[in-house]
Amino acid sequence: MEVVAVHSAVDVIRAKRDGQVLGDAQIDWVIDAYTRGQVADEQMAALAMAVLLRGMTPAETARWTAAMVASGETLVLDGVRRPTVDKHSTGGVGDKITLPLTPLVAACGAAVPQLSGRGLGHTGGTLDKLESIPGWRARLSPDEIRDRLDDVGAVVCAATEGLAPADRKLYALRDVTGTVESIPLIASSIMSKKIAEGVQSLVLDVKCGSGAFMKDLDQARELATALVEIGTANGLRTSALITDMSVPLGRAVGNALEVAEAVEVLRGGGPRDVVELTLALAREMLEHAGLSDVDPAEVLADGRAYDSWCRMIRAQDGDPEAALPRAEHVEVVTAPETGTLARLDAYGVGIAAWRLGAGRARKEDDVQHAAGVLCLAKPGDRVTAGQPLLELHTDRPETIAGAREALVGAYEISGADEVSTPLILDRVVANRAPAGPP
Amino acid sequence: MEVVAVHSAVDVIRAKRDGQVLGDAQIDWVIDAYTRGQVADEQMAALAMAVLLRGMTPAETARWTAAMVASGETLVLDGVRRPTVDKHSTGGVGDKITLPLTPLVAACGAAVPQLSGRGLGHTGGTLDKLESIPGWRARLSPDEIRDRLDDVGAVVCAATEGLAPADRKLYALRDVTGTVESIPLIASSIMSKKIAEGVQSLVLDVKCGSGAFMKDLDQARELATALVEIGTANGLRTSALITDMSVPLGRAVGNALEVAEAVEVLRGGGPRDVVELTLALAREMLEHAGLSDVDPAEVLADGRAYDSWCRMIRAQDGDPEAALPRAEHVEVVTAPETGTLARLDAYGVGIAAWRLGAGRARKEDDVQHAAGVLCLAKPGDRVTAGQPLLELHTDRPETIAGAREALVGAYEISGADEVSTPLILDRVVANRAPAGPP
Repeated sequence: MEVVAVHSAVDVIRAKRDGQVLGDAQIDWVIDAYTRGQVADEQMAALAMAVLLRGMTPAETARWTAAMVASGETLVLDGVRRPTVDKHSTGGVGDKITLPLTPLVAACGAAVPQLSGRGLGHTGGTLDKLESIPGWRARLSPDEIRDRLDDVGAVVCAATEGLAPADRKLYALRDVTGTVESIPLIASSIMSKKIAEGVQSLVLDVKCGSGAFMKDLDQARELATALVEIGTANGLRTSALITDMSVPLGRAVGNALEVAEAVEVLRGGGPRDVVELTLALAREMLEHAGLSDVDPAEVLADGRAYDSWCRMIRAQDGDPEAALPRAEHVEVVTAPETGTLARLDAYGVGIAAWRLGAGRARKEDDVQHAAGVLCLAKPGDRVTAGQPLLELHTDRPETIAGAREALVGAYEISGADEVSTPLILDRVVANRAPAGPP
Repeated sequence: MEVVAVHSAVDVIRAKRDGQVLGDAQIDWVIDAYTRGQVADEQMAALAMAVLLRGMTPAETARWTAAMVASGETLVLDGVRRPTVDKHSTGGVGDKITLPLTPLVAACGAAVPQLSGRGLGHTGGTLDKLESIPGWRARLSPDEIRDRLDDVGAVVCAATEGLAPADRKLYALRDVTGTVESIPLIASSIMSKKIAEGVQSLVLDVKCGSGAFMKDLDQARELATALVEIGTANGLRTSALITDMSVPLGRAVGNALEVAEAVEVLRGGGPRDVVELTLALAREMLEHAGLSDVDPAEVLADGRAYDSWCRMIRAQDGDPEAALPRAEHVEVVTAPETGTLARLDAYGVGIAAWRLGAGRARKEDDVQHAAGVLCLAKPGDRVTAGQPLLELHTDRPETIAGAREALVGAYEISGADEVSTPLILDRVVANRAPAGPP
């Protein structure tokens, strides 16, 4: 390593360590030099810890994000003849909203490039879910992405390696150095990938509750505000909904189970909460896209959203009519007493689904497409003693005991009649126009 | 890297990051695993930054030090038939005190194993200074060290690679990750090397002022307290003097120049401040060694200290009577006016000596043994306009201009008659007996 680089890296680290605001040139240099390997992992680890403990201003965070975007390619969507808009969720148990939302918003006239990862979680990522559809493939070239956006208006595919490489490198580093839990670093990681997609606008779904990374509303608001500020500063129309994740979203938790539920919604049915959140996010996206005169509820009801889904799946070689994989073993958890289901804990259900095989323990693992949990009752529902409450789906019966254990204390039946949990907890919008041309 | 190690490292990092006190087992594990390469550099860098920003309690710092000692060998001095005691200075401009002090304390009946490094500084380290004596060699085996301690009572030699390897690794890491300036990490680094020497007691000379790492008295007290606490907790009788480093110590700054000044002191002469500090530190050491009935001033005056010096130098193949190297070029800086020298800045003089070639810019560099600065007047001395104030010694005349530049504003002549700077600013002693057997 060159002496000059060491000295500059140390200067940047010391400045942040001592609580100073980093300048644009310092941020640009350190992210670029880290991407090229000129700033060493141990230096970036020290800087990440200093950022975690000292914080970054909104302007620093926006610049940090821009520098990570600049570390790689940006998808050029200029040729797409529709307004481009995307949604990102911070992730939760049963969160399959991308599946109905993307074709719905496309059917309303916008283009939605959902570049997704796989990641670790209670269930697989969006790509894992779609891969339970026979024939469907996640990998598209930039030209294929542009063609499908222009034509169908909807693409869900794997993010190319070239987008925000600094983020990939930094994320792996943060994972092993205890520097994950920093709002500026979390927010810039999310936004760098989304900004590199080249979209004009973005809606964030920030999850809050036991099944989410953010456990309380204050943290979720802080993250939502940081995300919206970064997007706005980088020229995107950006807003965020903060939504409840104390209860699983919908009834299905698990890859193929969630695809089936998404199809129900696209056919005009499905669980009330999934429909509500899909429509709320669609309205946010359509407003940003200048399409607020289109009513997504109508597009969902009259079958245009489902048609859009079928075209989206077929455009990536999937068969939307094919049967989805089914688990070899299904066991039922019954209600221990009669009353109202007062609580169904997202975290417990998530762990159960994960143990049944729906998620990954390590990056290299495969997910089981058919594994997961079906929630036959949701909070507020009347249940009778002995009535099936949850279905446990798996191909490996030896996992059932662990799943049952995860569900101990995860649900509660009370004598009270009314249980009400609002789904949408808050909305965060930009307090100024997006910077420069999007 | 094993998954289990990553998880444990992250647990330790997160605990310190969140302001928790680390447990003994966590500290022992992380230092050992880092030494063995099982905890990665980037993980230790994040932990070091968390320690810097969150601090460590005295108990944590003492354990951290013990773990670094346990990472390598400890010198076994059981066979030495004298009480063992050492001195460590945090370093300053013209600080050659080790040279007269070690043979003086040996002549009083103690054994002083001065295991030293080279390091970066305004001048070389103690080893570099002694290497200006023809024939003298720094490297001794553990057996040679024990023999000489038992016989002469004084050894100044290179620290073996096997002592506190965790500290060497961590020090190099801190240097490139902006994590040097942490009192617990500085204190544990110093003490791990000294405790590994196997001595029964230790006196610290914590320098304070422009020419020292600690610029103000509060910081110096904090460091001195941390050092004394670590030593005491690890079974050493330990105390510290906080001494002034706003003015160079003595007249000589530079390797051979300082050796010559040390010899003057050992022959009963030398600058008043060097004699005062040598005797003060000797008295501290003798008290710890149970030899407080011996008067070091007498041992210095009657030639026994000088005899001890000659034996110490000869025992490492040096010729104490040989002529020291002399610089090829000597230039004089004269007093611009008549009055009292009110100020002579240690930092400015240190930089001048370093530019003349007395110190190193990089670890790999050699020092020039003859280079340095001779201060012909010290604060409080009357000077006449045109009188020589400083001598600049070097073998490379092209360095003179830079040295002169470093001295601009570094001295001041005033009309006032009296200038008094106390040399010993404070004394820090343990508030309890050393833990366990030393």
